[in-house]
Amino acid sequence: MDCNKIITIARQFGSGGREIGEKLSERLGIKYYDKELISIAAKESGVNPEVFENIDERATNSLLYSLSMGLYSFGNNFPSMNEMPINDKLYLLQHKIIKQVADEGPCVIVGRCADYVLKDRKDVVNIFIYADLDFRIKRAVEIKDVKPSKAEQVVLKTDKTRANYYNFYSGKKWGLPENYDLCINRSALSADKAVDVIECYLKSIR
Amino acid sequence: MDCNKIITIARQFGSGGREIGEKLSERLGIKYYDKELISIAAKESGVNPEVFENIDERATNSLLYSLSMGLYSFGNNFPSMNEMPINDKLYLLQHKIIKQVADEGPCVIVGRCADYVLKDRKDVVNIFIYADLDFRIKRAVEIKDVKPSKAEQVVLKTDKTRANYYNFYSGKKWGLPENYDLCINRSALSADKAVDVIECYLKSIR
Repeated sequence: MDCNKIITIARQFGSGGREIGEKLSERLGIKYYDKELISIAAKESGVNPEVFENIDERATNSLLYSLSMGLYSFGNNFPSMNEMPINDKLYLLQHKIIKQVADEGPCVIVGRCADYVLKDRKDVVNIFIYADLDFRIKRAVEIKDVKPSKAEQVVLKTDKTRANYYNFYSGKKWGLPENYDLCINRSALSADKAVDVIECYLKSIR
Repeated sequence: MDCNKIITIARQFGSGGREIGEKLSERLGIKYYDKELISIAAKESGVNPEVFENIDERATNSLLYSLSMGLYSFGNNFPSMNEMPINDKLYLLQHKIIKQVADEGPCVIVGRCADYVLKDRKDVVNIFIYADLDFRIKRAVEIKDVKPSKAEQVVLKTDKTRANYYNFYSGKKWGLPENYDLCINRSALSADKAVDVIECYLKSIR
């Protein structure tokens, strides 16, 4: 189908939101952004991509503090990036890049508060992919090479980190339906079937 | 399509979950239960249906207290119904009736913690219908004859009552995705289109 939307995908760790996002972008013939956002941010800032990878989707507690203390000057240019904590630097870079890629046309963007960053656009569809805890633990072990004995802890902790990141930068609460147009528990669905459901939703709103 | 599932629908007030549930049951050719549960409960208990209507989906704070105090004797028969607060009586009657109608075959059940009541069945699909606040306020005025000046208050208060009811009897939290298989923001969808999306999900899990 022809798609004229920007589709953001928030996802629980181990739910397969990334795979679903990739397949969706293939099905719709539109671009896909996930880790790609880091590469672009690294290129634009000259920071080593590995540095960004380690802090991707992790909040500091410092941005609001720094803002409230007037440490950043927001003007036409980016705020004094050199003094900024690296997490906030990456957030602001990704914020800018998400807006840029959305301006370029329909695409799928995974994670990174994209629903919040693009909240003023009318052509955005926000999707939340989640799954039962057992499903996510199993998938973390099989797909993400997490040790079985650590899997539950990793799943829960990664989601907590993602939630903190989202809640901190958006001021909203990650994983609440009100932030999304469609929330799919994909425990009972293959990635392709989950894409079917999303495609059906996209057809329904045309 | 042939449907061999019990479908429960939880819904925000003003989201049109009831209409979507009715249309879904027509489309699938299966039974629909909403206020019908009250009529059955009234018939079974001999209580005036109007009495039940006034307290439908409203929690007391007394059931857990009464249980903890050993005031009810749960045996093969219903616990001492005469001594029980009327809200708890209705909850327990509806609980029993929801299990009965699910045993009878595929159907759509709206509200009343049906997802929780049927949690041990494998053939249940739980859906949450919600919508933007503006949409719900507009719909409350147009469809439910709520005064415009009171509409926001009525919408929020009714949802709070529903949440209290669900949280109290299920011990879970109403409106969190983890309780449902699919959550649809129907603000951008007609009832028929929302049914299309649900039908697509049902096809996908077969």
